[in-house]
Amino acid sequence: MNYFDYAASAPMRPEATEAYVYCAKDFYANSESLHDPGALAGDFLQHARNKLADVLSVRSDSIYFTGGGSDGNFLAITALANGNKERGRHILVSPLEHPSVMNTVHFLQSSGFEVDTLPVRADGRVHAEDLNKCVRHDTILAIIQHANSEIGTIQPMSKIGALLRERDILLHSDCCQSFGKLSMSSVIPYVSSITVSSHKIGGPKGTGAVYISPGTRAIPLMQGGVHEQGFKHGTVDVPAIASFVTAALLAHAELDDWTLHMNNMRHKLLSIIMRSENIVVERSHSPVLPHFVPIRLKGMEGQYAMLELNRQRHAVSPGSACKSGQQEPSRALLSLGRNENEARELVRITLGKETNESEIEQLGKSLLTMAANHGLTKVREHA
Amino acid sequence: MNYFDYAASAPMRPEATEAYVYCAKDFYANSESLHDPGALAGDFLQHARNKLADVLSVRSDSIYFTGGGSDGNFLAITALANGNKERGRHILVSPLEHPSVMNTVHFLQSSGFEVDTLPVRADGRVHAEDLNKCVRHDTILAIIQHANSEIGTIQPMSKIGALLRERDILLHSDCCQSFGKLSMSSVIPYVSSITVSSHKIGGPKGTGAVYISPGTRAIPLMQGGVHEQGFKHGTVDVPAIASFVTAALLAHAELDDWTLHMNNMRHKLLSIIMRSENIVVERSHSPVLPHFVPIRLKGMEGQYAMLELNRQRHAVSPGSACKSGQQEPSRALLSLGRNENEARELVRITLGKETNESEIEQLGKSLLTMAANHGLTKVREHA
Repeated sequence: MNYFDYAASAPMRPEATEAYVYCAKDFYANSESLHDPGALAGDFLQHARNKLADVLSVRSDSIYFTGGGSDGNFLAITALANGNKERGRHILVSPLEHPSVMNTVHFLQSSGFEVDTLPVRADGRVHAEDLNKCVRHDTILAIIQHANSEIGTIQPMSKIGALLRERDILLHSDCCQSFGKLSMSSVIPYVSSITVSSHKIGGPKGTGAVYISPGTRAIPLMQGGVHEQGFKHGTVDVPAIASFVTAALLAHAELDDWTLHMNNMRHKLLSIIMRSENIVVERSHSPVLPHFVPIRLKGMEGQYAMLELNRQRHAVSPGSACKSGQQEPSRALLSLGRNENEARELVRITLGKETNESEIEQLGKSLLTMAANHGLTKVREHA
Repeated sequence: MNYFDYAASAPMRPEATEAYVYCAKDFYANSESLHDPGALAGDFLQHARNKLADVLSVRSDSIYFTGGGSDGNFLAITALANGNKERGRHILVSPLEHPSVMNTVHFLQSSGFEVDTLPVRADGRVHAEDLNKCVRHDTILAIIQHANSEIGTIQPMSKIGALLRERDILLHSDCCQSFGKLSMSSVIPYVSSITVSSHKIGGPKGTGAVYISPGTRAIPLMQGGVHEQGFKHGTVDVPAIASFVTAALLAHAELDDWTLHMNNMRHKLLSIIMRSENIVVERSHSPVLPHFVPIRLKGMEGQYAMLELNRQRHAVSPGSACKSGQQEPSRALLSLGRNENEARELVRITLGKETNESEIEQLGKSLLTMAANHGLTKVREHA
């Protein structure tokens, strides 16, 4: 099977697995326990926190380990909203966010917050001018992802962040798709908080982290915890964190090589599939994550194309993995101006470290054949 | 180092680590993805769910995997409260609960629920007659742990459950300390939901499960999720779950042998330390978890005793691990009628599979010496 669904989940790096096993064996005590085994686990955890802080160029006490990307989005957004509700109850959110963000926002709505959706222009991006028009006197928080999980569009975080800072509004940015794929230096200085995920960069599932900018008022929904400065409840999963940070360090060290490899693989795939006029490549003119190749086979639902590609031993996604089984038009494509039928045609191909030329050639060939046969079918239907 | 803090966290079983590594390598796709790698991960997850359902003798669709015990308590309690708030807003809770339960209950209080604390008698247990007196017409939920995390007292779940069922009140029971240590058949028929943890039985941290009795009205706080029937957000951590269930199956299979071993080790330790009249064994006359040996060294704070034992290479706990660093009187000892000073003397010794006679002898010797020297110190102080 050729795996082209790296944006959903990536295989664990062998080094990350080794770190997990090593840590699970020798550092199993509760990292908050005051005896020596607890202190050892606690030291190991602090070491991991320092290393992740280095990768992000932030203070280590601004890092909070979580139970993954969705957990991180929930914890960070509710803590920012809860910590600032005395200042106002209005929240702005882009329409491109991951379901974990949208569901958190709906929860906040049911708890008395007001939410408005930000406009997105045809380049797939939130523009600072438009954002400025949506701001009210009681706006406390804007939620704008770094990179989109359906088509990979990268948002102009510095412009957005500068405007929001000027107006004293917090900014949470879901960086689960971009962390380990882009330098976070284009995000960190402009945000109040970010969420990162482990399993999308070759770390274990079930862990991740939130960064909260020092001085930001954040009050967790559930009070009284002792782990992670009260941000996240429950015994800290030190082995998973050690493994995650190992993967993060490797991804960081290999970023240039990985980017080059992604560019090569993507160009290779594009050069093949662009031969067909039935295939539309949905890369906007704005910057896009290098491992994303979002396409449409004209007239073919994404879910159908995904199943057909699966039969040909290629694993791709019809969009954001968390929504599979619920076929809805891609919100990212709708925001680019595609109609509902076109937005249902999205096929998300995402490449990874292990992707090679032979796999790309096989995928390209399958797509060309599908596009040609489907075009033929449509001609026949219309005849 | 001799480890006597199994109730805080246990070392991972080698079989559980193997299961983790195997699954992380070959079943890394998102278990909700519709392509073959996703379906394989999904099948693996379903297999694990079926196996855990077998252990609990429940339907597999009543099992929801979580991010651990604390996460499970939060998710289950808020879902039961949220799902039944139209019927009433009164909740009863025992004073012996884990911080994750108490913190969840405080969160519910801030969301408009009323909470009353149940009385506990000198045997460390909630009695059905007392519970009955606390019930109001608008009581929807009682929260009573199966076994206490400080001194191991086991609650009379069948009597409590029968009363609550009669009065149409839901019962959530935190079974994180008892799961894998006692048969759950004495709990499951009497409850609406239970929480179990993985890392206390030799599985990985960061995972666990909630059982919700079929037909129970439960509405998660955060709506719209697709994983775990909408109960828990985020990509499911299939490797950790496979590893957890492996540990659960082994614990279940070895339960009789383990119980025998615990009884032997406990009796051995008791036979040594009961020689000193400065050591009080805090095992009530009610049933207690077999691996718990809660003691007090008269006149010595538990935290101090813990640190002194640590110097002598024994890792014990001053109480519930999640509260270390915050020295408070043990709520379990207070409920048994001890005064505040006595309740600060708790030393929680918890044994495990790997505990052996030699370790027990060393621990017993250290405790006797400490008790003798401390007694001597006190005599000198009073002279």
